[in-house]
Amino acid sequence: MAKKLNVTPLHDRVIIKPAAAEEKTAGGIIIPDTAKEKPQRGEIVAVGAGKKDEPLTVKVGDIVLYGKYAGTELPVEGIDYLIMRESDIVAILGK
Amino acid sequence: MAKKLNVTPLHDRVIIKPAAAEEKTAGGIIIPDTAKEKPQRGEIVAVGAGKKDEPLTVKVGDIVLYGKYAGTELPVEGIDYLIMRESDIVAILGK
Amino acid sequence: MAKKLNVTPLHDRVIIKPAAAEEKTAGGIIIPDTAKEKPQRGEIVAVGAGKKDEPLTVKVGDIVLYGKYAGTELPVEGIDYLIMRESDIVAILGK
Amino acid sequence: MAKKLNVTPLHDRVIIKPAAAEEKTAGGIIIPDTAKEKPQRGEIVAVGAGKKDEPLTVKVGDIVLYGKYAGTELPVEGIDYLIMRESDIVAILGK
Amino acid sequence: MAKKLNVTPLHDRVIIKPAAAEEKTAGGIIIPDTAKEKPQRGEIVAVGAGKKDEPLTVKVGDIVLYGKYAGTELPVEGIDYLIMRESDIVAILGK
Amino acid sequence: MAKKLNVTPLHDRVIIKPAAAEEKTAGGIIIPDTAKEKPQRGEIVAVGAGKKDEPLTVKVGDIVLYGKYAGTELPVEGIDYLIMRESDIVAILGK
Amino acid sequence: MAKKLNVTPLHDRVIIKPAAAEEKTAGGIIIPDTAKEKPQRGEIVAVGAGKKDEPLTVKVGDIVLYGKYAGTELPVEGIDYLIMRESDIVAILGK
Repeated sequence: MAKKLNVTPLHDRVIIKPAAAEEKTAGGIIIPDTAKEKPQRGEIVAVGAGKKDEPLTVKVGDIVLYGKYAGTELPVEGIDYLIMRESDIVAILGK
Repeated sequence: MAKKLNVTPLHDRVIIKPAAAEEKTAGGIIIPDTAKEKPQRGEIVAVGAGKKDEPLTVKVGDIVLYGKYAGTELPVEGIDYLIMRESDIVAILGK
Repeated sequence: MAKKLNVTPLHDRVIIKPAAAEEKTAGGIIIPDTAKEKPQRGEIVAVGAGKKDEPLTVKVGDIVLYGKYAGTELPVEGIDYLIMRESDIVAILGK
Repeated sequence: MAKKLNVTPLHDRVIIKPAAAEEKTAGGIIIPDTAKEKPQRGEIVAVGAGKKDEPLTVKVGDIVLYGKYAGTELPVEGIDYLIMRESDIVAILGK
Repeated sequence: MAKKLNVTPLHDRVIIKPAAAEEKTAGGIIIPDTAKEKPQRGEIVAVGAGKKDEPLTVKVGDIVLYGKYAGTELPVEGIDYLIMRESDIVAILGK
Repeated sequence: MAKKLNVTPLHDRVIIKPAAAEEKTAGGIIIPDTAKEKPQRGEIVAVGAGKKDEPLTVKVGDIVLYGKYAGTELPVEGIDYLIMRESDIVAILGK
Repeated sequence: MAKKLNVTPLHDRVIIKPAAAEEKTAGGIIIPDTAKEKPQRGEIVAVGAGKKDEPLTVKVGDIVLYGKYAGTELPVEGIDYLIMRESDIVAILGK
């Protein structure tokens, strides 16, 4: 599991640690790094408190798929995390 | 029926296994692979939990029609699934 | 009346069997096939369950007028049906 | 008063029989046929049931003013009626 | 005060008799006819019933300021009235 | 304090007397007249009654900052006041 | 901590004192001044009262990350503060 970040996303935002290229999950899904326009995979490392009356669905530790161009980069100690809204996440793996 | 996927779509999204070209359903509907701009046919293999106060209408196993350009591809073990919002589905076959 | 289709439109969508050109209704309305940008006539052959708190107004068997470019084609057994949202229908004939 | 049409507009739509050019109303309003971009005058001949919680304000027989480019034509027995949403009507004459 | 018009604006619309150029109000405001893009002055001569749950604020007889390009012309007996939505009015004079 | 204007802004609009260039407030804020795209300073001289369920926050006499291009000019007795919506105001000075 | 400003942002706006380039936070996050399109860091020095039913989440003293192009400059005594809506803030550091 990714190290806990010392950052709290605001409202409905989450921070994701993108997966390294060509990894293989327990469930056998491969999403090659060279894929174009296909969902990307990463691990949730921080979540916001949600919007009024709408708590977030994903939680820290979830492996998720998200749009290739979703979010903005957040570089912390050499790692390019992504910060995006939960609505940019399309699916959770392994549930 | 398609194999159950180890992926959970978020909120109002569903995952569809597109039908092979030129199949013929029990009801006799043919949607040729070469049709342009016409609805496509596929089987629901995973559904999200819906949005707040709006559970999804389709369920796993439903054969549905959806817009030709709806969704984004989700390649899993050699099959190009599609992940899209339920609102991109126009009809359910065989009900 | 058109044959019942083995397809269920989702939510606020309906399926329409477009009228043949130059037909004349009991009420005497003629909408020539060559009319440009004028409403088209057809028969409702399937209706969705409506949206939350908003059941549909039209029902199977209704003869309706709809915008010339409304909906997308749904070819079934040689007939080009149209699938569109109820909001694309402008009027019901014969009521 | 215009003949009752055998057509029911859907929801918030109305059907209008446009006035002939250069007519003069009891109230003395003249809206010449050659006016550019000015409101047009016509008689309501059919009204829809309104939208949820919003019944229509105009009724059959009302003489109304509407935008020059509002609505789409609905030819019935040689007369080019107009079908438009009530929101395209700007005023009622003679009230 | 302007003559009462025999026209009822629909919903949130009002009819305004634009002021003649270079007039001077009791309060001393001058809005020259040659002003560019500045608010125009006129008198409310007819008001609609308002929208659902939102009665209008202005009333017949109010002298108001409105955007130079607001509304559409409504010629009645030689006078070019304006018909516009109340939201196009920016202020009431003399209150 | 600016003279009270004989004009009532409608709904959520306010009238502002722009500050002269290069003034210095008690709090020491300087907003030079030549600043580009920076907030401008002025005094509220009239306020509307607010929108339904949303009374205004600013009041007559408040010194406020607003966007350089907000509002439209309202010339009264030689002074170019500005009339704008409260949402165009970004901050109140001196509170 | 930044000096308290004598300015009150309106509604959901906040005022931020941008961090100097190349600083290092207690948590070890470095956001170089030359980064392109990456979140910027700053300290909240003033907050508005929030919108109706939606109090703000951030408070004075919070170190936050915000979009590189968010807000407009507010120069006060030689410092270029930023005034922006809370929704332009993506995360709070150190919580």
